[in-house]
Amino acid sequence: MVSEKIREHLLRDKFAESLGIELLELREGYAKCSMIVRDAMLNAHKIAHGAAIFTLADFAFAAACNSYGQVAVALEVKINFLDAVKSGTRLIGEASEEAVTKRIGLYHLTVRDEGGKLIASAQATAYRKQEWFGGRGQ
Amino acid sequence: MVSEKIREHLLRDKFAESLGIELLELREGYAKCSMIVRDAMLNAHKIAHGAAIFTLADFAFAAACNSYGQVAVALEVKINFLDAVKSGTRLIGEASEEAVTKRIGLYHLTVRDEGGKLIASAQATAYRKQEWFGGRGQ
Amino acid sequence: MVSEKIREHLLRDKFAESLGIELLELREGYAKCSMIVRDAMLNAHKIAHGAAIFTLADFAFAAACNSYGQVAVALEVKINFLDAVKSGTRLIGEASEEAVTKRIGLYHLTVRDEGGKLIASAQATAYRKQEWFGGRGQ
Amino acid sequence: MVSEKIREHLLRDKFAESLGIELLELREGYAKCSMIVRDAMLNAHKIAHGAAIFTLADFAFAAACNSYGQVAVALEVKINFLDAVKSGTRLIGEASEEAVTKRIGLYHLTVRDEGGKLIASAQATAYRKQEWFGGRGQ
Repeated sequence: MVSEKIREHLLRDKFAESLGIELLELREGYAKCSMIVRDAMLNAHKIAHGAAIFTLADFAFAAACNSYGQVAVALEVKINFLDAVKSGTRLIGEASEEAVTKRIGLYHLTVRDEGGKLIASAQATAYRKQEWFGGRGQ
Repeated sequence: MVSEKIREHLLRDKFAESLGIELLELREGYAKCSMIVRDAMLNAHKIAHGAAIFTLADFAFAAACNSYGQVAVALEVKINFLDAVKSGTRLIGEASEEAVTKRIGLYHLTVRDEGGKLIASAQATAYRKQEWFGGRGQ
Repeated sequence: MVSEKIREHLLRDKFAESLGIELLELREGYAKCSMIVRDAMLNAHKIAHGAAIFTLADFAFAAACNSYGQVAVALEVKINFLDAVKSGTRLIGEASEEAVTKRIGLYHLTVRDEGGKLIASAQATAYRKQEWFGGRGQ
Repeated sequence: MVSEKIREHLLRDKFAESLGIELLELREGYAKCSMIVRDAMLNAHKIAHGAAIFTLADFAFAAACNSYGQVAVALEVKINFLDAVKSGTRLIGEASEEAVTKRIGLYHLTVRDEGGKLIASAQATAYRKQEWFGGRGQ
């Protein structure tokens, strides 16, 4: 179970807030969130910007890898874009822990539309610092 | 040389515009742009959000891979985050073509602060469609 | 179901053969294989070489993405190494299709030891050529 | 300058040796090596196996990131394959340090043929352990 303190910390994310990203579920090593693609998130080809899709996946990743209350920072993220998305679409981002060692966490991220179609898939590595902002380390 | 038509097309990017990203240089296979980190781009740890840094790199990538007037879409991007950035910092994003085949383009992306310190480095693959919005294909 | 012709084609892989890799299962979009780590596969730190582990994952990937009889080539592979492996260990490599479009296939690859411990995890993109060596395209 | 002790350690790599990989140059943060593609390194399509090409890049990476005498292990490698290679071709692999922090090193890897054509390009992350096998740490 993730404490209220940890959840509050994660919701201080200003960039995710500015895109209207909502945190739907949070468990240790797992997070699910949503975002509605708005006109301000489109690219020059008038479809959802890859970077907006990335932001949703990345927020889920940050929530999942920080869910223990231990400060975790992104080392790297590799994302594949699979399908185009129109303005108005509601997207669901999920991050699931594949493996965790003392220092490193590996996460699988997906972004899907409400029909379940895979829009993007990513693999992300977190570096776990010896610092806690909540949870068992405190 | 990149035509005005191509440049105008690239500047229709609403998401880049909403983050105040500016296109500084554009040549075939190369682009350079800038972004000032604002408070609305911070993450829960109060440093520049990885996704905002990604957006700068991704805009440079989109500009570089579409610089021929041939529609190119991102297949995948892999980004490494190397250093934390505070609010107010001006970042420079660059994308350079490493290789291009009929269908595929490979780009190396960097994000640096004004002192030249490497903040993020990425490798990105574009898929080149048989469609043109400007340039030699028209 | 994968035809005998397709299976025979995949088994012509000389590099996989030279490492003693065996194909255990093959379905459309999925493959499972095994490899025993030998002394000749160790690195300077006397543990299994990352490139040997990669080879097992990559063979599973090649089998899965070519399982339709359509020629598919690797565009890129991104692999995370999670744990060290000693000589003598039997490893299991699996590749599963995450998504497939007309031109592109995305695969999730894992390498585990016989106890199920995750040794490496990868995400791989294939480009599907308009050529067939077997299957429905012929 | 890299000491003889460090160089000898790197040359204990049995897997690289089994593929005939030679170390041509070694400086702190940089390595260059070569490999001749043999029939035993071909894949089912009778071109050089991606995993053999990866092995050359990975050996250059291991040499470059261990060049300080500090034990460095691969966290992840992301490789793009750009061109097919025939048996008999001599390939040159290079690894150059892009950035290094206390714990992490980022490297850019290339594999080229003797004419300089880019065959593969990779980005690789090393984790630097608090252990030394040679050099300044001892």
